Amino acid sequence: MHQSQYQHIIDRALAEDLGSAGDISSEGAIPSDATAAAHVVARQEGTLAGLEVARQVFLTIDPATEVRLLKNDGGRVPSEAKLITVAGASRSLLMAERTALNLLGMMSGVATATARLVAAVAGTNARVADTRKTLPGLRVLQKYAVRMGGGINHRFGLFDAVMIKDNHLIAAGSVRSAVESARSRVGHAVTIEVEVTSVEQLKELLVVGADIVLLDNMSPELLREAVALVDGQMLTEASGGVTPETIRAIAETGVDIISSGWITHSAPNFDLALDFVS
Amino acid sequence: MHQSQYQHIIDRALAEDLGSAGDISSEGAIPSDATAAAHVVARQEGTLAGLEVARQVFLTIDPATEVRLLKNDGGRVPSEAKLITVAGASRSLLMAERTALNLLGMMSGVATATARLVAAVAGTNARVADTRKTLPGLRVLQKYAVRMGGGINHRFGLFDAVMIKDNHLIAAGSVRSAVESARSRVGHAVTIEVEVTSVEQLKELLVVGADIVLLDNMSPELLREAVALVDGQMLTEASGGVTPETIRAIAETGVDIISSGWITHSAPNFDLALDFVS
Amino acid sequence: MHQSQYQHIIDRALAEDLGSAGDISSEGAIPSDATAAAHVVARQEGTLAGLEVARQVFLTIDPATEVRLLKNDGGRVPSEAKLITVAGASRSLLMAERTALNLLGMMSGVATATARLVAAVAGTNARVADTRKTLPGLRVLQKYAVRMGGGINHRFGLFDAVMIKDNHLIAAGSVRSAVESARSRVGHAVTIEVEVTSVEQLKELLVVGADIVLLDNMSPELLREAVALVDGQMLTEASGGVTPETIRAIAETGVDIISSGWITHSAPNFDLALDFVS
Amino acid sequence: MHQSQYQHIIDRALAEDLGSAGDISSEGAIPSDATAAAHVVARQEGTLAGLEVARQVFLTIDPATEVRLLKNDGGRVPSEAKLITVAGASRSLLMAERTALNLLGMMSGVATATARLVAAVAGTNARVADTRKTLPGLRVLQKYAVRMGGGINHRFGLFDAVMIKDNHLIAAGSVRSAVESARSRVGHAVTIEVEVTSVEQLKELLVVGADIVLLDNMSPELLREAVALVDGQMLTEASGGVTPETIRAIAETGVDIISSGWITHSAPNFDLALDFVS
Amino acid sequence: MHQSQYQHIIDRALAEDLGSAGDISSEGAIPSDATAAAHVVARQEGTLAGLEVARQVFLTIDPATEVRLLKNDGGRVPSEAKLITVAGASRSLLMAERTALNLLGMMSGVATATARLVAAVAGTNARVADTRKTLPGLRVLQKYAVRMGGGINHRFGLFDAVMIKDNHLIAAGSVRSAVESARSRVGHAVTIEVEVTSVEQLKELLVVGADIVLLDNMSPELLREAVALVDGQMLTEASGGVTPETIRAIAETGVDIISSGWITHSAPNFDLALDFVS
Amino acid sequence: MHQSQYQHIIDRALAEDLGSAGDISSEGAIPSDATAAAHVVARQEGTLAGLEVARQVFLTIDPATEVRLLKNDGGRVPSEAKLITVAGASRSLLMAERTALNLLGMMSGVATATARLVAAVAGTNARVADTRKTLPGLRVLQKYAVRMGGGINHRFGLFDAVMIKDNHLIAAGSVRSAVESARSRVGHAVTIEVEVTSVEQLKELLVVGADIVLLDNMSPELLREAVALVDGQMLTEASGGVTPETIRAIAETGVDIISSGWITHSAPNFDLALDFVS
Repeated sequence: MHQSQYQHIIDRALAEDLGSAGDISSEGAIPSDATAAAHVVARQEGTLAGLEVARQVFLTIDPATEVRLLKNDGGRVPSEAKLITVAGASRSLLMAERTALNLLGMMSGVATATARLVAAVAGTNARVADTRKTLPGLRVLQKYAVRMGGGINHRFGLFDAVMIKDNHLIAAGSVRSAVESARSRVGHAVTIEVEVTSVEQLKELLVVGADIVLLDNMSPELLREAVALVDGQMLTEASGGVTPETIRAIAETGVDIISSGWITHSAPNFDLALDFVS
Repeated sequence: MHQSQYQHIIDRALAEDLGSAGDISSEGAIPSDATAAAHVVARQEGTLAGLEVARQVFLTIDPATEVRLLKNDGGRVPSEAKLITVAGASRSLLMAERTALNLLGMMSGVATATARLVAAVAGTNARVADTRKTLPGLRVLQKYAVRMGGGINHRFGLFDAVMIKDNHLIAAGSVRSAVESARSRVGHAVTIEVEVTSVEQLKELLVVGADIVLLDNMSPELLREAVALVDGQMLTEASGGVTPETIRAIAETGVDIISSGWITHSAPNFDLALDFVS
Repeated sequence: MHQSQYQHIIDRALAEDLGSAGDISSEGAIPSDATAAAHVVARQEGTLAGLEVARQVFLTIDPATEVRLLKNDGGRVPSEAKLITVAGASRSLLMAERTALNLLGMMSGVATATARLVAAVAGTNARVADTRKTLPGLRVLQKYAVRMGGGINHRFGLFDAVMIKDNHLIAAGSVRSAVESARSRVGHAVTIEVEVTSVEQLKELLVVGADIVLLDNMSPELLREAVALVDGQMLTEASGGVTPETIRAIAETGVDIISSGWITHSAPNFDLALDFVS
Repeated sequence: MHQSQYQHIIDRALAEDLGSAGDISSEGAIPSDATAAAHVVARQEGTLAGLEVARQVFLTIDPATEVRLLKNDGGRVPSEAKLITVAGASRSLLMAERTALNLLGMMSGVATATARLVAAVAGTNARVADTRKTLPGLRVLQKYAVRMGGGINHRFGLFDAVMIKDNHLIAAGSVRSAVESARSRVGHAVTIEVEVTSVEQLKELLVVGADIVLLDNMSPELLREAVALVDGQMLTEASGGVTPETIRAIAETGVDIISSGWITHSAPNFDLALDFVS
Repeated sequence: MHQSQYQHIIDRALAEDLGSAGDISSEGAIPSDATAAAHVVARQEGTLAGLEVARQVFLTIDPATEVRLLKNDGGRVPSEAKLITVAGASRSLLMAERTALNLLGMMSGVATATARLVAAVAGTNARVADTRKTLPGLRVLQKYAVRMGGGINHRFGLFDAVMIKDNHLIAAGSVRSAVESARSRVGHAVTIEVEVTSVEQLKELLVVGADIVLLDNMSPELLREAVALVDGQMLTEASGGVTPETIRAIAETGVDIISSGWITHSAPNFDLALDFVS
Repeated sequence: MHQSQYQHIIDRALAEDLGSAGDISSEGAIPSDATAAAHVVARQEGTLAGLEVARQVFLTIDPATEVRLLKNDGGRVPSEAKLITVAGASRSLLMAERTALNLLGMMSGVATATARLVAAVAGTNARVADTRKTLPGLRVLQKYAVRMGGGINHRFGLFDAVMIKDNHLIAAGSVRSAVESARSRVGHAVTIEVEVTSVEQLKELLVVGADIVLLDNMSPELLREAVALVDGQMLTEASGGVTPETIRAIAETGVDIISSGWITHSAPNFDLALDFVS
């Protein structure tokens, strides 16, 4: 992930926190020449994502701050692990603290939730993917965190793959007309995925063909039947009702991909603290 | 909440989803003159926030879309309640759908989590407040959702109140010097809050005075002792370890405010769907 | 194409032309209440693209201007055809004129160049595609214009498909390692294309597989041999040295796609004028 | 040209190419620690413009990239000349490549086209100028390239000089009223130019006076007559039908300035490549 | 002045006042459905500028607000004159009030100061012009206000005219080399002005020529001598020490233009109030 | 004040001055390799603010410029004091000059005006505060300058404190209902101030209570009576008719705060020059 992909998120988060008046607490209570050192510490076990982003928060506030990353994105850490060491002007550290922790906590939360699902399907054929059900404005960071948690990315938006869902089918009239219309209009490098909710729809789709079929809200029995029907002619993806509890049964049906909105829209924040060295 | 406070969030969320190539699925599969109607429907029980924001998403994509809000922010709804009716060009509805649901789901999730804490302290003196532990770039929407859930807002950022925390005290040397320094530098309309973690610190603070004391990570017993010591000389606020399970005991200590990061950084998404009228 | 995909281009183009001082000629020479009507007229034969964009330029300057589109994007017109009628405040028309014509002229130039290549391959299997060799900041409009000219869009940027070129192969060591590495890291909905410049490389690629092969700078004879070797296992795309003169011979080799940078980076402007009705 | 005048163009061009997902090919196929060196090489003869801009593209992506310019803007180079050497992280070079080449190719294309017209009028009194018929959003770069090709810049927009054209005359009623109205309203440092299309209009203009007269779409014979009539009382500028073939005859009429839209809106891209050192 | 030239100033001023939390006073104390009417009233005598800008502030906050302008920019009003009537949601009026008054007060302050200088030179040949000594970010509005006060605009920035000052002369070596170098590099539509501080420099300049001479910080006697020397060969402009008290004597020397920084950087605010109709 | 709070103001001010064409005078008259040194010099006595901001202007144009600050913000200097030394490329110095001086002159003007009021109340209890009557878009710099002049800041906008003014009281019906409504809706850390214009209103307010009372446009006698009535129950603030001449009498009434719009909206510019070392 290149810095230009997320620097604007850092800038906006800092602007939101600083407003126009700035950090009146630090400017009020701390001499401008005071210095300090501190550690970002995990307060729970989990998988990390966002260390480089957190570093950049500190550097955006003050390029003179020394920031040392002690762990790597994608790594698993125990509670109380030291993740980052920062040293510099006390005011700079305090100004950056909350924004750095908010970003790192959100991203590591997503990575940890993803890793939980990935662990649950270990040994099966299935890979865990994300969705477009992401926190508004934070998608690029959440998708990165999914990769760090061992998941794969579904499309990044409406722009990079065709997904024909029930509402498109209603408007287009039939699976065939929807797929053929799309195929004739989009470029040759665009993947086409079609959502089906029944075996009947799937059979209709198999006639016209697609790159991926999304098997939405099907029971494990139905999924198994669908996977057999598809028989390798396209990738199979299951979605709907995916939780840490249900995902194993879904994976065992043989689907290629299981996509989950929960890992991005509801992942609990990863608990962190900035401990000053006194 | 005025539209200018959040329109930029909508714009960025839509830009993130549309990219430069736009909605290639709808443009590929749906005729430009197709029209449709649909309902935004709750898939769970809870407290709503963000209906006006969701409306604005649809209108940003297409001012010709008809949007009717069927419920009010702050209202409680059962699962399957219809929340919004939209009608217009099919492509416009599909282009706006995910962003509208992502925003409404995030905001109603926060309102529902807040309402759960508020209900848990019913009958006590305590009010539920938020923190700066918010999703980066989305603070204004999350703070609004907290109000809709019956909570109150703590400061919006580093700029609108002084909060002297442990790390400031370390840098300033003592509670007295930190508070006096801040008081002499900030304007007369600025509230000063000081975090203490022990009865000793609290006693030191009572000598110099402040508007609010934050009693951080104290047990109910300690909180009770602290509230008695303060004896109305300043507002008392408790934080740390606040969960739906623990909040009642905290509230019964007599503190004025209980602040929670959980309601903003880890509130589960409110489940929603856009059901087309076929 | 949704307005939000290009409004920022219009805004920047107008800002570039108005500067801070605005249209000092019109404000200097024309009364503020003068009104006029005018036609946008083609000064050459060709294929149109950008009529809706041009309309939006006039409306951005003055929402009260009446704009009537007389032709459709993708349509072919003779020289002197009237394309758009505008009526309103004279100052508003003159302020928008140059920016509207510059955009419509650029886009129709691309559509016309594309249509010329498309016509040249009529009757063959080949489709004409664009590249990333577009005018900086104007890609979305140029890619739209390519579609209006009868072409198809290659990827919109570095983000929506994998293209492994010679320079990637040098860095990765081999075709196999490059493709396998990419396949393991990108999402399941991402298409993978690999550039080869020789039959040897193509054979290496056929072992590992890909979605599309880019046959770069090959002679028609080599292309024919390559197409035969591929034998439908992936899409074949030819690039390099594509001109209106050479494209027919390339198309007759049986390749699926012929991509051209010329249609976007060097398409001559489509000649237009704004004729006032006196 | 100061960097602040064009950095926003680079930023937008890179954003357009990277989208939110970034360079998935390089991140997929190339190790993050791979390094490389490469040359930007001319694939045709011509006049250069944009070397500093291209350098800035590489540095914007990665300030650690080493960039050495081997030629100067305004210089003439043969085909296969090496223009720039870059060295650094392979991913950084590949991420910047297309945007750097697109900008340098566009700008050198303009410089080369301008130089062709300038060469064609060598030995006459005439200077070659550009117009406002530029690529939307890229005017500042194109105007710079015109200077590098030996041309001079006409006004940069509607804001920096008064140009009274036929449409203004229609609205103002007469040449006299248009010029007098403008002169009374604009500042004393603003130049006033008036377009005339006939000798009658020119005579009318000579009575009221102006700084420059634009002789639009006149034949060489008419131009010669007009230049004689003006007799040094104002600068004379010819426009309309200016091509590499016609410009010599126009220049020989004695006009001071010949302005051409072709050099900015239709200049063929300058052919370039980035050759990696293997 | 077109709205696009200043809307960004309104947007930033409102954003500065609303922050992220918005108007907590009005939302706290006033019901959302309360309505009101009010007048913007002059609290002093003077010349108006900015009525249209003020209108736009109210409409930006709430397009449903009714705004009626009772006076015109450039008009002279007595104290207590009603300038604008607004009616609509009470919250909307209060949210817009301060920003509207700040802008109208600043602009009318500039217009009133300019009008004072213009009145002081009545009957002479001299016109009053502004400078680049404007409030940062507000130049376009201040230059407009100068015109409304009866003044004329000097260049809008570094970009629209050449001004060779003492510091340029030091760097260039001589008046001749500075002027000749500039003339060969800038476009034919660019005006060249040169600052001189002595009769010797002026004589040097008269040899090489320019469009305008800036006679800086000269006494009336010296100015008179300079004007005689120039003898109509270029426009003469006086600057330095221009106050309402000194300007008459300067004007009577016969200079064409007198430029003043005071009218933009130090004009006292025009006193205004928003009186609600109770 | 952190750089991120004002860098956007510098960027906009420079953009306003450079436009798209840049500094055509320096590029026209000065060789690109010429270097120079210069001093920013005070041309009057006064209190400084903005030295760091001015430094940042020079560095924004050219990070290679050497800038040495010779004085401190908040310091008092005599006329002709050297404030800043700059050295570097001549073109860079000239490009930054006007914007640096405009910002430093505006800010030091505010600081000097504030210091004048502060000196006038010396020995009394009163502190001098600013208002929201600031120059649009420049509030953060003006509020900083007020602090440097020895004043204190009132609220930064509508967002960081409640101020209930006459127009709110009209809409809310009574002082009691306005205050109680606000108190129930805003957060516990928000200060509430209420404006009263008579002793009757003050008595009404004393019943319901507030943090600060604004005594608007009262005579010294009335102020004295109000201060006695309040008797320390809330902070007292006087506003209206505050000038260097009247402020002493107001201060002697015993009010805590005296707020002045004059120090921000009408402070005369601080006179400065950039003197090149020849």
